[in-house]
Amino acid sequence: MGLLNLVDHHCHGVATADLDRADFEALISEGGSPPPGETNFDTPVGLAIRRHCAPLLDLPRHTSPEDYLARRAELGTAEVTRRFLHATGTARYLVDTGFHADGLTTPEELAKQANARAHHIVRLEKVAEDLAAEGVDPAEFATVFPERLHATVTAVNAVGVKSVAAYRTGFRLDPTPPSRIEITEAARSWLADSPARLAHPTLQRFTLETAIDLGLPIQFHVGFGDNDIRMTDVDPTLLSDWIARHRTPVMLLHCWPYQRQASFLACVFPNVYLDVGLALHYVGPRRSPEILAELAEVSPFTRLLYSSDAYGVPELYSLGALSFRAALDALTGDRVGTDEWSRADADRIAHLIGHGNAERVYHL
Amino acid sequence: MGLLNLVDHHCHGVATADLDRADFEALISEGGSPPPGETNFDTPVGLAIRRHCAPLLDLPRHTSPEDYLARRAELGTAEVTRRFLHATGTARYLVDTGFHADGLTTPEELAKQANARAHHIVRLEKVAEDLAAEGVDPAEFATVFPERLHATVTAVNAVGVKSVAAYRTGFRLDPTPPSRIEITEAARSWLADSPARLAHPTLQRFTLETAIDLGLPIQFHVGFGDNDIRMTDVDPTLLSDWIARHRTPVMLLHCWPYQRQASFLACVFPNVYLDVGLALHYVGPRRSPEILAELAEVSPFTRLLYSSDAYGVPELYSLGALSFRAALDALTGDRVGTDEWSRADADRIAHLIGHGNAERVYHL
Amino acid sequence: MGLLNLVDHHCHGVATADLDRADFEALISEGGSPPPGETNFDTPVGLAIRRHCAPLLDLPRHTSPEDYLARRAELGTAEVTRRFLHATGTARYLVDTGFHADGLTTPEELAKQANARAHHIVRLEKVAEDLAAEGVDPAEFATVFPERLHATVTAVNAVGVKSVAAYRTGFRLDPTPPSRIEITEAARSWLADSPARLAHPTLQRFTLETAIDLGLPIQFHVGFGDNDIRMTDVDPTLLSDWIARHRTPVMLLHCWPYQRQASFLACVFPNVYLDVGLALHYVGPRRSPEILAELAEVSPFTRLLYSSDAYGVPELYSLGALSFRAALDALTGDRVGTDEWSRADADRIAHLIGHGNAERVYHL
Repeated sequence: MGLLNLVDHHCHGVATADLDRADFEALISEGGSPPPGETNFDTPVGLAIRRHCAPLLDLPRHTSPEDYLARRAELGTAEVTRRFLHATGTARYLVDTGFHADGLTTPEELAKQANARAHHIVRLEKVAEDLAAEGVDPAEFATVFPERLHATVTAVNAVGVKSVAAYRTGFRLDPTPPSRIEITEAARSWLADSPARLAHPTLQRFTLETAIDLGLPIQFHVGFGDNDIRMTDVDPTLLSDWIARHRTPVMLLHCWPYQRQASFLACVFPNVYLDVGLALHYVGPRRSPEILAELAEVSPFTRLLYSSDAYGVPELYSLGALSFRAALDALTGDRVGTDEWSRADADRIAHLIGHGNAERVYHL
Repeated sequence: MGLLNLVDHHCHGVATADLDRADFEALISEGGSPPPGETNFDTPVGLAIRRHCAPLLDLPRHTSPEDYLARRAELGTAEVTRRFLHATGTARYLVDTGFHADGLTTPEELAKQANARAHHIVRLEKVAEDLAAEGVDPAEFATVFPERLHATVTAVNAVGVKSVAAYRTGFRLDPTPPSRIEITEAARSWLADSPARLAHPTLQRFTLETAIDLGLPIQFHVGFGDNDIRMTDVDPTLLSDWIARHRTPVMLLHCWPYQRQASFLACVFPNVYLDVGLALHYVGPRRSPEILAELAEVSPFTRLLYSSDAYGVPELYSLGALSFRAALDALTGDRVGTDEWSRADADRIAHLIGHGNAERVYHL
Repeated sequence: MGLLNLVDHHCHGVATADLDRADFEALISEGGSPPPGETNFDTPVGLAIRRHCAPLLDLPRHTSPEDYLARRAELGTAEVTRRFLHATGTARYLVDTGFHADGLTTPEELAKQANARAHHIVRLEKVAEDLAAEGVDPAEFATVFPERLHATVTAVNAVGVKSVAAYRTGFRLDPTPPSRIEITEAARSWLADSPARLAHPTLQRFTLETAIDLGLPIQFHVGFGDNDIRMTDVDPTLLSDWIARHRTPVMLLHCWPYQRQASFLACVFPNVYLDVGLALHYVGPRRSPEILAELAEVSPFTRLLYSSDAYGVPELYSLGALSFRAALDALTGDRVGTDEWSRADADRIAHLIGHGNAERVYHL
């Protein structure tokens, strides 16, 4: 078959400004800027950029960081962005607009640059924090937040919402909805801080419960992220009780290094969906096959999705797609090559994972 | 060497009734029936059935689910069961008779259909729950349970017992035996419920302590199972303190996704034995090699066993054996092929894992 | 390139006495002596000794344990030690002198036998326990311990210190420094025991905080070890808060089975360094590639190091190096073979991991 069309069901915008070396390096690691004397080009993704991205900028493979960045500057941000986005073969992007979106392309801009379609994903905590910034009576929060969430989702025709509970409270949440009194009390405590960063377990429960009523898939950041993550609090199996209480599609993002735990959840709960975005471009195309294979160990093929979780630097969209394709090709190639699957089954599964499952669950 | 004889040291009975599609699908996933619009044939085990089981029913590889189920119905349950059990090359089955055993073959029936031998494994919680159903004075439970357990084990000549503490309390158990007063108090609380499902930590500790006195191996469900499992409570290393206090063989079943943690336990404790049953048929023969290899990373070869943990559907016995053989062949083939092990050592290790360790530890 | 020079940044001394079979077997497993009827030659490392160590004693590959031990005795401990140490290709050994050092070579003796250089690593708990054994006023501990630690480090020109908090309290430590009053109170409680084994969380925090002031890298035992380890307490990500508060190089030793969690930490924290010592020789050269590959999934190549964590038996130094070289060759060979990395980059990375990173971070 030709190049598989992809739905990137979780990504962010591309930085619109020109990036100098320090900016660029800070954006190619979840650790941000490297320590003195080191460079983020000395990482798996750094080598992947020199190997796979350089040719898209008309440079030889394995070109030096200096030459790479010089050519990048020469071509300009718009052209570089266009080249990398086009290379992904992505038909649709589902864009989380809730994280440091200033200076990033909007979904509409991203769609235009990529010659693709884009959809909005609304971040629950951002909606709550915007309300807090505007000022809201704690006693009204239980009423106003659902109204605002509904209005926000409707205004941008969002196809899903996202929770970063992983970064705020972890997953050891009481799975039951809080009472109105509890919400008011928690809102009072939370709104006393300024700026109000939503990290109150009661309010996390409430925002999630509110999201359920929208009937849209709920994305959860799981596992891998920046240094605010406390890994043992974000094992996705800690969400089991919460998942068991709900029927809404639960989209577990990233999952690494808990991809097998995620696979278990998709096996035993009918509403769990998975990807290994973010990990894909950071580990590169020689490790992504093992990680996708672990994610797929017991998961139904109807629950696996593609995402890049790319942010800021267009190289990451390209590498995310490349690393995903390498993993998917390795999986299907192995199974067909050993006659475990027929070619027709392999093609069908590739289409499900690449775009079909996302189209179905997000009603695209 | 010819086909390695296997001892399947942990399995259940086969369903005796004819199964329609809904029944069949519900039995080929730890998640039970698929959600609307999905089919459990779209899973790794579903594809493995179409690939590996179809030919045993005289169908082409990769046959459709519809054709597969039609042929299955045509042959009838008895013939289908006979074919799949014979294909396993299993000499002995150790059968856990304590889980939804109505409608399943007894060990004796299984033995007959398989043309093999079968032994009983007594489930501790079932013995306690049967007592509760019959009515027992809480003040007598500390005396009556050991008597009943001993009588049950003797009556069926059981070769081991099994605990599903994983499903009831998890493994964060106080490793010390409870006092008689604590047992009585716990029994009173427990028996007040009806039907009484044993999930009281004190009584779990007591049933395990009682089992020790039998001198038989104790099987523990570990890791992978259905959606009642809370994964972070069933990491086998949480049993370390309990294991360290006892000398009885501790048989850690399934282990996935904690196979490396299990390997560690077998390395450092002299009484720990392991398998990756259940996972084997669910992941299929292309992933089972990696999982067995992880289980074997630091484990003595004298502590690794085979089990299918098959339940209900005879296909799973066949796939469990097939997937185990693929994994064991991959392990020994790699080591011999790279001259890491001599062929003689590889053969000896294969016999230990396939049947010798089970024969020794269960005194078969 | 020729044989890559190694810096073994974490190992112990070699036993100076002749070892009989029981002694030898006890030293080739983290579980110590095998249970009756078993032998530690029936483990991955046991087979690796027969395969890889036998030829260095002029024996055929896969020789029997009996022949192996007979030849070993015939050659004598000094010659056997010399042969295995020379085979490692190690230029420098960083020796933890704090664990059962009686009967082991000193770093100076090891250096001489190996025809290499050796450096001291001071174990924090040993310094505290030596003070306790000598007698120290609890009210003075907060003053005396830093003085003694500084004096000890200076006396042996130590290049780093090591904590075995993993064995004593686990990693769920309050990341803040304790107050002097808290230290005194904890010391009082601790010193009331005899012999005083340091396992008080307050004193662990204090010893670590004291170590920070030395400005030397701090090694942490992580993951794999003997049966005193409680694995779920030593996931390295539990150290995240502690790591985030400090800038000192944090050297995470062993890491298995948490090598992916460790990789995450090295990705997001600028001061985290990793190895998979101990695991390397226990899993052998056919599994070490996967384990190193997982450690390297998202880690900067500037943070990966080599260690053997060999102890007592010289075979383990040899196998540690062999297993590490197999893993590193597999990594670089795969990446160069698939044109993911240039040969020049692969060589540079191999030198960083093999010795360059250690030289830089320990100022060798």
